[in-house]
Amino acid sequence: MPLSRFKKRHTKVGARPGTLVIPKDAAKPTIRSIHYHLGGCDEADVVDIDNLHETFKPDTVTWVDVQGFGDRKVMQKIGKVFGLHSLLLEDIVNVPQRPKTEPYGDQLLMVVRMVQLEKNEDTRSVGVDMEQISIVLAKNYVITFQEKHGDVLDPVRARIRSGKGVIRTHGADYLAYAIADTIIDCYYPVLESVGDKLESLENDVIHNPTPAVLQELNAMKNQLINLRRAIWPQREAINSLVRGDHNLMTEPVGVYLRDTYDHCIQTSEVAEMYREMVTGLMNTYLSSIANRTNEVMKVLTIMASIFIPLTFMAGIYGMNFEHMPELHYRYSYAILWAAMLAVGGGMIAYFWKKGWIGK
Amino acid sequence: MPLSRFKKRHTKVGARPGTLVIPKDAAKPTIRSIHYHLGGCDEADVVDIDNLHETFKPDTVTWVDVQGFGDRKVMQKIGKVFGLHSLLLEDIVNVPQRPKTEPYGDQLLMVVRMVQLEKNEDTRSVGVDMEQISIVLAKNYVITFQEKHGDVLDPVRARIRSGKGVIRTHGADYLAYAIADTIIDCYYPVLESVGDKLESLENDVIHNPTPAVLQELNAMKNQLINLRRAIWPQREAINSLVRGDHNLMTEPVGVYLRDTYDHCIQTSEVAEMYREMVTGLMNTYLSSIANRTNEVMKVLTIMASIFIPLTFMAGIYGMNFEHMPELHYRYSYAILWAAMLAVGGGMIAYFWKKGWIGK
Amino acid sequence: MPLSRFKKRHTKVGARPGTLVIPKDAAKPTIRSIHYHLGGCDEADVVDIDNLHETFKPDTVTWVDVQGFGDRKVMQKIGKVFGLHSLLLEDIVNVPQRPKTEPYGDQLLMVVRMVQLEKNEDTRSVGVDMEQISIVLAKNYVITFQEKHGDVLDPVRARIRSGKGVIRTHGADYLAYAIADTIIDCYYPVLESVGDKLESLENDVIHNPTPAVLQELNAMKNQLINLRRAIWPQREAINSLVRGDHNLMTEPVGVYLRDTYDHCIQTSEVAEMYREMVTGLMNTYLSSIANRTNEVMKVLTIMASIFIPLTFMAGIYGMNFEHMPELHYRYSYAILWAAMLAVGGGMIAYFWKKGWIGK
Amino acid sequence: MPLSRFKKRHTKVGARPGTLVIPKDAAKPTIRSIHYHLGGCDEADVVDIDNLHETFKPDTVTWVDVQGFGDRKVMQKIGKVFGLHSLLLEDIVNVPQRPKTEPYGDQLLMVVRMVQLEKNEDTRSVGVDMEQISIVLAKNYVITFQEKHGDVLDPVRARIRSGKGVIRTHGADYLAYAIADTIIDCYYPVLESVGDKLESLENDVIHNPTPAVLQELNAMKNQLINLRRAIWPQREAINSLVRGDHNLMTEPVGVYLRDTYDHCIQTSEVAEMYREMVTGLMNTYLSSIANRTNEVMKVLTIMASIFIPLTFMAGIYGMNFEHMPELHYRYSYAILWAAMLAVGGGMIAYFWKKGWIGK
Amino acid sequence: MPLSRFKKRHTKVGARPGTLVIPKDAAKPTIRSIHYHLGGCDEADVVDIDNLHETFKPDTVTWVDVQGFGDRKVMQKIGKVFGLHSLLLEDIVNVPQRPKTEPYGDQLLMVVRMVQLEKNEDTRSVGVDMEQISIVLAKNYVITFQEKHGDVLDPVRARIRSGKGVIRTHGADYLAYAIADTIIDCYYPVLESVGDKLESLENDVIHNPTPAVLQELNAMKNQLINLRRAIWPQREAINSLVRGDHNLMTEPVGVYLRDTYDHCIQTSEVAEMYREMVTGLMNTYLSSIANRTNEVMKVLTIMASIFIPLTFMAGIYGMNFEHMPELHYRYSYAILWAAMLAVGGGMIAYFWKKGWIGK
Repeated sequence: MPLSRFKKRHTKVGARPGTLVIPKDAAKPTIRSIHYHLGGCDEADVVDIDNLHETFKPDTVTWVDVQGFGDRKVMQKIGKVFGLHSLLLEDIVNVPQRPKTEPYGDQLLMVVRMVQLEKNEDTRSVGVDMEQISIVLAKNYVITFQEKHGDVLDPVRARIRSGKGVIRTHGADYLAYAIADTIIDCYYPVLESVGDKLESLENDVIHNPTPAVLQELNAMKNQLINLRRAIWPQREAINSLVRGDHNLMTEPVGVYLRDTYDHCIQTSEVAEMYREMVTGLMNTYLSSIANRTNEVMKVLTIMASIFIPLTFMAGIYGMNFEHMPELHYRYSYAILWAAMLAVGGGMIAYFWKKGWIGK
Repeated sequence: MPLSRFKKRHTKVGARPGTLVIPKDAAKPTIRSIHYHLGGCDEADVVDIDNLHETFKPDTVTWVDVQGFGDRKVMQKIGKVFGLHSLLLEDIVNVPQRPKTEPYGDQLLMVVRMVQLEKNEDTRSVGVDMEQISIVLAKNYVITFQEKHGDVLDPVRARIRSGKGVIRTHGADYLAYAIADTIIDCYYPVLESVGDKLESLENDVIHNPTPAVLQELNAMKNQLINLRRAIWPQREAINSLVRGDHNLMTEPVGVYLRDTYDHCIQTSEVAEMYREMVTGLMNTYLSSIANRTNEVMKVLTIMASIFIPLTFMAGIYGMNFEHMPELHYRYSYAILWAAMLAVGGGMIAYFWKKGWIGK
Repeated sequence: MPLSRFKKRHTKVGARPGTLVIPKDAAKPTIRSIHYHLGGCDEADVVDIDNLHETFKPDTVTWVDVQGFGDRKVMQKIGKVFGLHSLLLEDIVNVPQRPKTEPYGDQLLMVVRMVQLEKNEDTRSVGVDMEQISIVLAKNYVITFQEKHGDVLDPVRARIRSGKGVIRTHGADYLAYAIADTIIDCYYPVLESVGDKLESLENDVIHNPTPAVLQELNAMKNQLINLRRAIWPQREAINSLVRGDHNLMTEPVGVYLRDTYDHCIQTSEVAEMYREMVTGLMNTYLSSIANRTNEVMKVLTIMASIFIPLTFMAGIYGMNFEHMPELHYRYSYAILWAAMLAVGGGMIAYFWKKGWIGK
Repeated sequence: MPLSRFKKRHTKVGARPGTLVIPKDAAKPTIRSIHYHLGGCDEADVVDIDNLHETFKPDTVTWVDVQGFGDRKVMQKIGKVFGLHSLLLEDIVNVPQRPKTEPYGDQLLMVVRMVQLEKNEDTRSVGVDMEQISIVLAKNYVITFQEKHGDVLDPVRARIRSGKGVIRTHGADYLAYAIADTIIDCYYPVLESVGDKLESLENDVIHNPTPAVLQELNAMKNQLINLRRAIWPQREAINSLVRGDHNLMTEPVGVYLRDTYDHCIQTSEVAEMYREMVTGLMNTYLSSIANRTNEVMKVLTIMASIFIPLTFMAGIYGMNFEHMPELHYRYSYAILWAAMLAVGGGMIAYFWKKGWIGK
Repeated sequence: MPLSRFKKRHTKVGARPGTLVIPKDAAKPTIRSIHYHLGGCDEADVVDIDNLHETFKPDTVTWVDVQGFGDRKVMQKIGKVFGLHSLLLEDIVNVPQRPKTEPYGDQLLMVVRMVQLEKNEDTRSVGVDMEQISIVLAKNYVITFQEKHGDVLDPVRARIRSGKGVIRTHGADYLAYAIADTIIDCYYPVLESVGDKLESLENDVIHNPTPAVLQELNAMKNQLINLRRAIWPQREAINSLVRGDHNLMTEPVGVYLRDTYDHCIQTSEVAEMYREMVTGLMNTYLSSIANRTNEVMKVLTIMASIFIPLTFMAGIYGMNFEHMPELHYRYSYAILWAAMLAVGGGMIAYFWKKGWIGK
């Protein structure tokens, strides 16, 4: 169970800012566009990127959904068509960035961290898969970028298609909000899963404190540090939108974002609370070990303190001196037994009084 | 005694914001209205929600008291009648929310966390029951929502009915204050109960430090973390009202709220202080174990150090060599006893000097 | 030595704000008034509260000194005569309040915490008696309230009577400052006393680390937490006066208050520093125990490691086999002794080399 | 492995501010100038410092690259030619300064800390070489100073020479940014190296917790404290540039600097995260030792508890009393063996039940 | 090595503010004046305080250097001549004050803490001597006060006398800066000395962790807490001057003060870093003890586990039963030796496999 180390596929030191260094394992891009307005919605796979912008219509919100960015030429073409700043493009492919909200002229880049539980549930550690989703918001379109195929945004797509709710009545800023909100919501099941494992670990710490439990606690602590690192800056980023720092976010959507902001605070607080609990369990583990050592010592001390004096007494009369008058008395043996029982009983009574025996 | 895990009945990931997902175990709603003005007060069970708004009169403050929200249709009807924002409604049913104060147009949502001691007092842990109370304040009415029936607000109702004090001379903002203040006051008996249990635990840590005590300390620590999590944001929320961020709260009521704010600070400080004390007791527990191990070791060391050399001496003269001149001397046996007494006494003197024996 | 628990005689939950619930053990009130101006001063016991206000003269500062508030009617009468806000009165009798400065119209409430060393000096714990002093400052008078009779303000009274210093040349704000300053000054002897006890405890931790010492350290830590809780908000409260938030405090008195503010910072820093030192001593205590266990183990290990092998060697030749040729050799016994000395000496040399014996 | 102590070659106490005390081991200065504009670039070794300023042309950005400052006269000449403030010059040679950004009239001093992995990779500790780079930014030139020859800035030089990217299209502020950004980028490989070593240490803590591992953890912790000390103020310094506090930094370059700022935050967070992990590993180490002591004690207790009673039993029948009837019974010996097997087996069963034997 | 307790010679509780309580051990005052201007400087011992002010000339900066304040009358005379506020005078003699910068009308009080290494270098603890220097800055003069004779300001005096540097070209504010800067510079040698001792202690913790080392670490920690307490507020005080809060400090001197501010930050960071290192060493010490206990236990366990079973085996054949067939077999003795070697060897092999023997 290795430490969850930081791995950033950073560009070469000193490379030109805006250099697009595509990660080797990034998936090939698939691009889909969704155009929607109050009356309906159109979905299409995008093949001809160069003319993508021409399919945009007024009063229509367009979501360009780019999954995978493993093709530098495609990315550069997208950048050119939409006039993306070179640093914005670099932030999209150079993952993981810190969650943030940054204005670039009349575009707004939102970097969000998506978390998902990993499938393999055989071990007790909570496997969490993190992936950066970059949201570019402009006047009438939203472009999302992600490294791998597959995400948690299907409910948003379904809401657009069905036309239920208010999504089609708002502009592109609401779409950006809906995407960010859905991603933040994913922290809840992850935290619940962490909570379940924590409960199971608590049981082990108390009843079966093996070193493996400590390692699991350590792994969970690192996981929680990582989660907090993902949530914390999100909080700040969304708050800047709530405060209305960026005028692409309209007032009515700000009210919804306030809700997302609350979720960020709540999840980061829960992550923090869990971390405190893990620390508590670690201390309990340590006391538990100390306690067990104490128990072990008591058994040893009791056994040794009872039998070492008795062995000495038996040793006395195992000596071969010619002149040991006791050896010849008739009741010596019985008297010695009585003495030994007295000594042994005395020791037992002493330990019993100290509370070391019989609870 | 399980960890007090975070459990939020969050809506499905990606659900439309404002979706009302009623918790399964929420009680069926009972609605009561209290209309009051300087001259008197009217109470009534509300059946016809649609026409509830028409029973409102000018110069009359109305308190709509909704207990239980286990019926989606009723909740939606209330939302419609009073024009509640869909996110406001969601915050009411999607418990627990973080305590907060949020303006929605000409309405103000106050989310407060009510704490109550649980009845079963058989264990020493302090069982605390937390429930969200949502207060919607408007120009001339207050609506309160709570998940279960029964609350701590009877004194407020009694004050309205009796007309004593200033409650009937103020507007709806004073009512909202009175409700919030009464809820915050409930933290005092809970903290006092925690204080009592803490004193009892302190005694145990010093005189009977069993692992069970450590578990109880851990449980209490988690409880206090939870309490702090409940109180802390309340502080912030009420302070924003005191600062006059929301104009529904008038200046004279602001003076009263300052008092509530003080109580928030005081309770959160006491919770923090108790948490420091619990941490202190945990360390005492650990030293206590270390100390006991030390005591156990001393007994073992004393017994072993005295008798092991003596046993060796006896062992010497239990040997069967043909040529052991000492065996045949007349006073050998007595001399050996003298030597053994000297060695044993020497060891005892050594330990006594080291302070291990006889205090 | 019980934990210093928080005990607030809070009013019944949900009571009307401003309800005067007089603590049962509050002393009966004694009221004295001191009128002074540049030319002289008048002191009088106040019997007729209703007409107290009429004894006030222009250009004269009046100090109404209320000791004990164990009589609801008297308190209500005072409240009425001076027009005190009901919440202000509640803050006065509902002790302990958090130290604070709160404006109520043209009056200013200052809540200060007075500390005094308790008399019984038989134990090493520093007994600290805390009492709330409430100072109501208005244009030309100051009213002080305290729960019990007797305080630390005699020097202020003496300065008024003698007319030395600048006290009579300033207005009521200077009097309020002088009272607050004198109360803050009382933290110095308490902290010095804590410092003395700390030094004594340090000695014990190093030379005689009994569990009782740890308990004393814990008690001192709790005491310091309490002191800090008393000083910290005072700092904030006085700073708000220094900043000139309340116009009852004039500029020239502000310069004096800056000095009081400095004292608040200094005392809270010293309390914090002592707390860090107590924590340091606790850790030293724990290492001390660990060290002693180590010492105990060394003695045991040395004794056991030397004599257990020797006992075994003696045991060999205590066997009764018919065919044990060594038993019959003339020098067997001497050779065995030589071997045993060699083994024992070898063990001693080994331990000496390891540094376990002979320093 | 000594503590990484702070060593500042501070000037003599009380020396005149601006006194140039050249560190003894500073390299002799080599000065190179690079003039570049959109159309091309000129590089030259600078010999005649006095006339250096005259080689500057309008619309040309000049980078004066000073490597080594081990010659007071040269430094003073440079200071005179460019009109550097005496304190600015002192900050350059009196290394290490805290990373900062300070305006001096129409010049801006940026102090950045360059980190490089040390070459010798034989030990597991991460050797980090820190060196201060001082960047003086003015309207149309940049001067960089460093103590030793050789740096990480070759990629910047290459970009200027090749003319690729935007470097030649911007002014001197972009050059200053490019230099600072390249230096900050160097923290990534260092942190990755720390991460690798951390993983290797984690393995050791779990499987082979020798005291040497603890020392390595301590050394790494100190290293991380040092790294954080280098990164943290950088963050602040660059943020002040992003906020536009200094008008030498133009708006478009501010966008790029935002990126550098992000890198500062990210690296400082990673350093902090690693430090928390190191602390976690230290605690694991301690539990690991406690656990091993517990294991050792169990073995001792099991061995002693089984054989000490048995030895006592054998000792009984090794006594030489005349009247010990058991000695003469035919089956005594067999019965005793049975009893001893019962006792030994009983002890083993007891320990097995307690979980001390056979897992 | 006692705790470095806080000792403030505070005035009597409730004394009039501005009361001059001269510490008993304060040195008798010696007063020297230095008048200087661009052209030269005059030094003189001041005898006639009353006419001191008349020796001041326009365009001349005067430094009145008061060493020792053990004479109340002299102090009051100085206060009267220069019109010092009574609280200002009190802050000067009532040492130690918290470092601060406070305006008093057209005078500015700077309280700075001077640190000096104590001479006796026989113990490893770093003896630090702290003394308050109070600097009163006015339009054209500076007065400095210190408790004892002798200080670190000789370099400043030398710079004034020699006229080198810029000191004579600036006004009184530069002189105040020069004095403060020289005092802050004194923290560097102290911190370096602490660093040296820390390195020596690190060595001891690892190779010779006696309880005395822990005490030294504790003493050093307290020393560092004290140093930080001295530096931290200095930072704040100087920053307020840099920000230009006080108009006695002119803009050009502000640039120099920025440098002093940097030194304050750097020294406080180094003190903090050292404190973290001391904490790290304390933990190392504790693990070190735990490790040694583990080592001791291993030796005991190995010795006992090998020889206790063997002793039992020998004990068996030391019994005196009539019917013990083994006793009579010819090869019994040899077989038993073989068995004992096998058991002993088995135990050794077991421990070797566990890694307890032979590393």
